Amino acid sequence: MNIDRIMRAKSVAVIGASKDETKRGFQAIKILKQEKFEGKIYPISLREEKILGLTCYKNINDVAEDIDLALITTPAKTMKSVLMDCGKKGVAGAVIIAGGFGEQDQDGKLLEDQVVSIAKQHGVRLIGPNTSGMINVHTNMNLVGLKDVPKGNIALITQSGNIALHLITEARLKSQKGFSFYVGVGNETDIKFHEYLEFLENDDHTKAILLYVEGMKEGRKFLQQAYRTTRKKPVILLKSGRSATGKRAAGSHTGALAGISEVSRTAFRRSGIIDIENADELFPVAETLSSLPPIKNNKVAILTDGGGHATIAADLMADYGVDVPVLREKTQALLKEVLPPNASVQNPVDVAGGTDADPEIFAKCAKILLNDGQIGGLLIAGLFGGYGLRFAEKLTFIEEDAAHQMGKLVKKTGKPIVLQSLYNFARPHSLDLLRYYDIPVYDSLDIACKCIAALSHYGSYLRTYHKKTSFIMNWRVKAKKEGELIIQRALSQGRNVLLENEAKAILHLHGVPVTSDRIATTADEACAIAKEIGEEVVLKIVSPDILHKTDAGGVKLKLKTEAEVKDAFNEIIDNAKRFDEKAEIKGCLVSRMMEEGMEIIIGTKIDDQFGPVIMFGIGGIMVEILKDVSFRVLPLSRSAAGKMIKEIKSAPILDGVRGKPPVDKKAIIDLLVTVSEIIEAYPQIHEMDLNPVIVHEEGMDIVDARIIL
Amino acid sequence: MNIDRIMRAKSVAVIGASKDETKRGFQAIKILKQEKFEGKIYPISLREEKILGLTCYKNINDVAEDIDLALITTPAKTMKSVLMDCGKKGVAGAVIIAGGFGEQDQDGKLLEDQVVSIAKQHGVRLIGPNTSGMINVHTNMNLVGLKDVPKGNIALITQSGNIALHLITEARLKSQKGFSFYVGVGNETDIKFHEYLEFLENDDHTKAILLYVEGMKEGRKFLQQAYRTTRKKPVILLKSGRSATGKRAAGSHTGALAGISEVSRTAFRRSGIIDIENADELFPVAETLSSLPPIKNNKVAILTDGGGHATIAADLMADYGVDVPVLREKTQALLKEVLPPNASVQNPVDVAGGTDADPEIFAKCAKILLNDGQIGGLLIAGLFGGYGLRFAEKLTFIEEDAAHQMGKLVKKTGKPIVLQSLYNFARPHSLDLLRYYDIPVYDSLDIACKCIAALSHYGSYLRTYHKKTSFIMNWRVKAKKEGELIIQRALSQGRNVLLENEAKAILHLHGVPVTSDRIATTADEACAIAKEIGEEVVLKIVSPDILHKTDAGGVKLKLKTEAEVKDAFNEIIDNAKRFDEKAEIKGCLVSRMMEEGMEIIIGTKIDDQFGPVIMFGIGGIMVEILKDVSFRVLPLSRSAAGKMIKEIKSAPILDGVRGKPPVDKKAIIDLLVTVSEIIEAYPQIHEMDLNPVIVHEEGMDIVDARIIL
Repeated sequence: MNIDRIMRAKSVAVIGASKDETKRGFQAIKILKQEKFEGKIYPISLREEKILGLTCYKNINDVAEDIDLALITTPAKTMKSVLMDCGKKGVAGAVIIAGGFGEQDQDGKLLEDQVVSIAKQHGVRLIGPNTSGMINVHTNMNLVGLKDVPKGNIALITQSGNIALHLITEARLKSQKGFSFYVGVGNETDIKFHEYLEFLENDDHTKAILLYVEGMKEGRKFLQQAYRTTRKKPVILLKSGRSATGKRAAGSHTGALAGISEVSRTAFRRSGIIDIENADELFPVAETLSSLPPIKNNKVAILTDGGGHATIAADLMADYGVDVPVLREKTQALLKEVLPPNASVQNPVDVAGGTDADPEIFAKCAKILLNDGQIGGLLIAGLFGGYGLRFAEKLTFIEEDAAHQMGKLVKKTGKPIVLQSLYNFARPHSLDLLRYYDIPVYDSLDIACKCIAALSHYGSYLRTYHKKTSFIMNWRVKAKKEGELIIQRALSQGRNVLLENEAKAILHLHGVPVTSDRIATTADEACAIAKEIGEEVVLKIVSPDILHKTDAGGVKLKLKTEAEVKDAFNEIIDNAKRFDEKAEIKGCLVSRMMEEGMEIIIGTKIDDQFGPVIMFGIGGIMVEILKDVSFRVLPLSRSAAGKMIKEIKSAPILDGVRGKPPVDKKAIIDLLVTVSEIIEAYPQIHEMDLNPVIVHEEGMDIVDARIIL
Repeated sequence: MNIDRIMRAKSVAVIGASKDETKRGFQAIKILKQEKFEGKIYPISLREEKILGLTCYKNINDVAEDIDLALITTPAKTMKSVLMDCGKKGVAGAVIIAGGFGEQDQDGKLLEDQVVSIAKQHGVRLIGPNTSGMINVHTNMNLVGLKDVPKGNIALITQSGNIALHLITEARLKSQKGFSFYVGVGNETDIKFHEYLEFLENDDHTKAILLYVEGMKEGRKFLQQAYRTTRKKPVILLKSGRSATGKRAAGSHTGALAGISEVSRTAFRRSGIIDIENADELFPVAETLSSLPPIKNNKVAILTDGGGHATIAADLMADYGVDVPVLREKTQALLKEVLPPNASVQNPVDVAGGTDADPEIFAKCAKILLNDGQIGGLLIAGLFGGYGLRFAEKLTFIEEDAAHQMGKLVKKTGKPIVLQSLYNFARPHSLDLLRYYDIPVYDSLDIACKCIAALSHYGSYLRTYHKKTSFIMNWRVKAKKEGELIIQRALSQGRNVLLENEAKAILHLHGVPVTSDRIATTADEACAIAKEIGEEVVLKIVSPDILHKTDAGGVKLKLKTEAEVKDAFNEIIDNAKRFDEKAEIKGCLVSRMMEEGMEIIIGTKIDDQFGPVIMFGIGGIMVEILKDVSFRVLPLSRSAAGKMIKEIKSAPILDGVRGKPPVDKKAIIDLLVTVSEIIEAYPQIHEMDLNPVIVHEEGMDIVDARIIL
């Protein structure tokens, strides 16, 4: 069910309407009238006859006409009966302002669950509870009580009322841009982040989507939706609550995995989301992305009227991975024609006083730079806008002319300009002109740099998104039936851990070459199997109660003779019994001793917010000490698997160091992708560990495999 | 020679004085008069009689009175004769505005060298050339042509005129603070950064020193000076030109070592410098540090009126390594008395609407928090200052009262408060009051967080600086004489590379245990030495022309029998001749074969800006592939050496992993400190490499040592 009827409601009932000016039930009606809401307003009040000239109704069901949305301003304890009334009336949704639910305590959580369940029963979708409300800025449906929200094309979805206030204030004061929607998601009990995203993707008023998130209830669905949305419009996100203290502040009690903030960051990027770290950058980046075409080739020029800004900007571009290429000879020659001899024309371009008497030179340089096919976008930093104030008043008009020229240049070339000006605070007309042409202007060089970088990152994403995997689990079924049997058998035996041979059997079903391990229940049987293998063997304990075999003395390596195998078998069984006298012992797995090679580790886990994630690393010190691992949210494409491998710091080791040959990276990629497929196929699997896998110059051996259901 | 007479000049000659209003020679006099310079002004002009009512002189030597400082506004080509005149007159210093020197081209560099040499001959110290000038704000000696520089206690030293303009504008518009001095160092030909620092350290008007640096000519002296200065007053620095493009923009051609930006960062911190990355933070951090007492215990409280700000601030504090401890039960109980039941009182403290009707609650909470002995400082974020605007006008007066209370609280407790307010832009009186009490207020939460963190970092430095080593090379001499002989002998033989045995001999002189290696010139001699050693031996080529012995086939390990030694000797000599037929071959070094252990690498190099630096890492993959090394500017204390060892990611390996015993870390620290001492003792040493050193559970072996002069 989509939420269009809620987001574009044509009629709103205010439940709990009041004449008391301090009450939300009064303010809500007042602001809807003040802001000239395009739809109808129905105050629902037990006590009043008329409020602000509007007829009141005792109950929402007394209203004859259809009602799309209810704004509920009554306290938590009334919510169940109010929602039943709403359900009876057939409203599409309700905004619940009241707190005192899940965010408060256990009783609140219980009430919340009941309220959600009633709403679901009656087909009423919920925004909140514990929200500041929502605004459809274009229909003037302001259910927040916040005045003067500027109209524009940025949709704002937040989990914090004061961050929303912050961003709206910033927009009003510092830009000509504004918002299409605002939604405070509150406790996110019903309508989830991804549903807003889906709605906004198809909303014509919205050109960019800005999110402030502390925690998500359905992270994976959000990723899936963002993966589709970002190719149509940019999504900008700040995720806070990264640190332990931050989580404490956010009152977050999710069991998110350690390191998940890094994983989620990669996943956000894979979905094309522009991921923001500094709150100061949040609105500017959204403003820029909602206004300007993305940069197609990750190459920008920097134009300044002073060395310091040029140097700082160049450093920041390097940090952001945006290329500031040395300009072609021809472009340099053209610049030299308009600039003084001591100007720098390599890129960054420093006009070296060349604009002091004639700021039109900025427009001339911009034209030369954006007409260079190699350059995809332009950052201008320094005093532009202030030449009239600083040098001579008549320069004001030249600056305004230059602003017109630059504005038209952006439209014509389809390449963006972002400007930083020291004189932005003075709001000179030339800078307002730039904004009129959708060229954003900032006081802060750091922010201007981040904005041009965001245009570049988004452009790069749009060029490559077809290579990324969606986050939609969509498994192959061929091997699934047999694998399912193995899992069901374990579950029916009350086990949530697969035996090593069972885990390997599942791998084998999905095409992973595994050794032909067999279980011996007696020492003699072990000897017989060893003889059949005809090489050095390994014996390992098989017990559903022993997870860490080595710790239990349950592994013996490099067994050659019959006597060795026999002794090893008996010793392992003894050790296991000593380790846990209640352990159910199924025998010993007898396997061929693997050749030496490079040990790698692959593991999967389920994250509370994002579902299955996978980890890869090189075994031993690299993983244990250096924590040198890479993570991805599953599923995994071949190309993402390839990147996971490259991403660890110790990746060059795979190519062979100190005289060793390179290992079979294709085999590792195959394995990663297959593990992804297995996790897709069996949602029962909670954890999977292949540790170690020995990779050779060609092929590999799965030495140990563990699956927890 | 100190620069006091320049910085506090009582008389200024303007050389190149002019009546042309567009000329610097006119503007300089105009602004000195306008701003009411406390000292005397002497225009020097060949053409004019009077300028702006002041009598002109044809030559500076025509002035009868003493002149402290000359502001030279004439072009580069006049500089030599002008400086000779200045020298004759006995001026203490000259500010050279003109460009066209080293920053331009090779001819300019030549002229610059001549000018500097003339100045030195005549005892005239130089600021510039290629500078915007300098200002002593308190005596109104404004030699820049920039009006309305606000008076205050921050000294500003920059290498970029537009960054200075940026910071001065920011101060004027957004704070009540200002500057004591401004100096544009220009080409830094004569007076260096560290000399300004030394002067400012003892200047009563200056409470904080703010630097923008692209490259330094005397980085080490700067570190040495900063090491002394920072314990008296804070030094805040932004160093740009980190990236290759940034260096290109800064026109930097220093041969700074790769990775030196990381090294310099550590060195800056070791000198107590507050190192800033974002330009936006530069002035605010200086403002805060010039106004407020540092935080003594690295523990802060966060107080907000909304969850979003609390969460973001908590994340940032975690990033900055500042502790946000859970408050004591007692403090929580006190907070609960003044806050509503749904407020968070753990820390961050979220008032949860508790201040809506009474913003004095902010002051009450601040008092409770700063009176908690555990809390060293307070960050307040949100709407404070805007309650009157947002809720009810009468709250304005309550906010003003709260501001007075908080201001006095800071004075009384000696603990700082930094405030972020969404309403800062509206400049409400309450926020100006906070500024009056030296409580800085910012729009940006990111910046406010950085400021409170800087107070914490500076406080932590002041608590521990006595444990840091100064950057002053101050070597022991006991071993020096003999070592000097070895070096001199090599140099007299035209060699800039010491032979392995010579390098080891120097190590030995300084107390490092080395093996008793001996050189064999024939195969028989090698056999005789091997027999004497009586264990497995190693043979290594000795040739001043072969630096990388292994590459030349010049190393043979694990030689047991006489035959093996003989064959190895001959083979090594053959290989060496094939490798480089002109190589001078001195024979083979015969050494005991070392026991296995952990290989480490220690190396030193000379950086262009900071002089000798040292590197440490664990041999093999860790250094070669993972680049897992730590750097320090020399010299090194034992505690810094200890930190270097801990700092590498692979450090846990030293404690023993996978069943291996821990290695002798004390021996590594000894060696690092001794290498530091050796580098101090012999300034001729350009590079030193101990690679590998094998460290055992006890003690170690220097396997190979290389010294380049």
